[in-house]
Amino acid sequence: MARYTPASARASTKRRKPNPAERRRDLCDAAIELLAADGAKGLSHLKVDRKAAVPDGTTSFYFRTRSALLRAVAERLAELDLERLQSIADSAGDQGDNPSPSLLSQVVIQAGTEPQLSWTKARYELTMQAARDPAMAAILQQATDAFTKLHREILVQLMPHGAELDSAVVEDLSNVTLTFINGLLMRFAHGDRIVDSPEQLDGILTAIATGILKSPQRGGLTDAGDSHATRRLGTG
Amino acid sequence: MARYTPASARASTKRRKPNPAERRRDLCDAAIELLAADGAKGLSHLKVDRKAAVPDGTTSFYFRTRSALLRAVAERLAELDLERLQSIADSAGDQGDNPSPSLLSQVVIQAGTEPQLSWTKARYELTMQAARDPAMAAILQQATDAFTKLHREILVQLMPHGAELDSAVVEDLSNVTLTFINGLLMRFAHGDRIVDSPEQLDGILTAIATGILKSPQRGGLTDAGDSHATRRLGTG
Repeated sequence: MARYTPASARASTKRRKPNPAERRRDLCDAAIELLAADGAKGLSHLKVDRKAAVPDGTTSFYFRTRSALLRAVAERLAELDLERLQSIADSAGDQGDNPSPSLLSQVVIQAGTEPQLSWTKARYELTMQAARDPAMAAILQQATDAFTKLHREILVQLMPHGAELDSAVVEDLSNVTLTFINGLLMRFAHGDRIVDSPEQLDGILTAIATGILKSPQRGGLTDAGDSHATRRLGTG
Repeated sequence: MARYTPASARASTKRRKPNPAERRRDLCDAAIELLAADGAKGLSHLKVDRKAAVPDGTTSFYFRTRSALLRAVAERLAELDLERLQSIADSAGDQGDNPSPSLLSQVVIQAGTEPQLSWTKARYELTMQAARDPAMAAILQQATDAFTKLHREILVQLMPHGAELDSAVVEDLSNVTLTFINGLLMRFAHGDRIVDSPEQLDGILTAIATGILKSPQRGGLTDAGDSHATRRLGTG
């Protein structure tokens, strides 16, 4: 549990006070650790102060309400996820004709090991909150939209002749694999590692893609659904 | 939101006081509705009293602590789930040579519509609690073990020549489809219906099974993992 370096420790190394943006980020990172370890119930402004080793009241100064803190954490998580996913998308572009989905699989397997496992756990805690907080739901939805768009681009790059696939088939591939990955991350969050290596996950994602491409119902296996994200993808 | 019939209403119809087992069940059913609507944060003994329309203090009398209440709710959910799944397994046996997975798909699609959607939401709330409550984790694990075992039996019955399949392949099929179903239920719990009909879900599960059976790595796509459930399945 000593993975987290308090803001004050980093600040004293740098021999300067962190600027407000850095301070907010440090407080959010401390909150993510708390959420992952103790759940939403274990999160309070004071606990974040203690975890980040800053004076009592600092977190309240930056985030007046519990909702403001939780939403900032959601935005920080989205930022961390997208940085990681964008770097994957960029590397996939560099791979040229290599059809292996291993970069995608690497990022998913990494999400099941620390430090990313804490992000995964914290994200599920916030997801439960989002059912009762429309502003939180909107932040998470924005992150999901971006994740889904990138995932779709990676899929198209990684599939042989991916660019020639019908968009409804790409949507089926994307919906089914994202749903599987969602279930897998949920199992990881609870310590249930049914898949251990990116190679294994490659095998599963390839098997799912093979099955969908061979399906007589391909292109109609999934709906746009009720969500903002999938509706936008359907028309975008 | 008027789906739930308070215990007192049923009792007065029957013109007799419910026995302790019925009372406990009614209180758990009220708690499930509260969990689904307001999350773990929205659950208290008094709120369960009001929801079930019983005198204040009744829930505290039957369940002394919050943990006792939550664990009883977990057991009630497991009971509801298993009743439903067992009836599916029994009907599947009656189907004879019909290879359609539609009974399995029906039960999953039903889990995304009320009243079962409330059970699905309540189960996710308890799952988050289980990460920090070993007794709760044990109850949910027992239900997962039973669900996994039944799911596996249904799969074998529904696959053409299912009984001839290598057990490692059946385990891959079971792990991958259960993980997909888990992700799907999570999406349902958040109002994201990417699959609307049992026929669509049949198409997806068939596609996944086709892909796995064609995979060169079949039988080695998933691990027994760390969980009690999958370890037991691996040897049982």
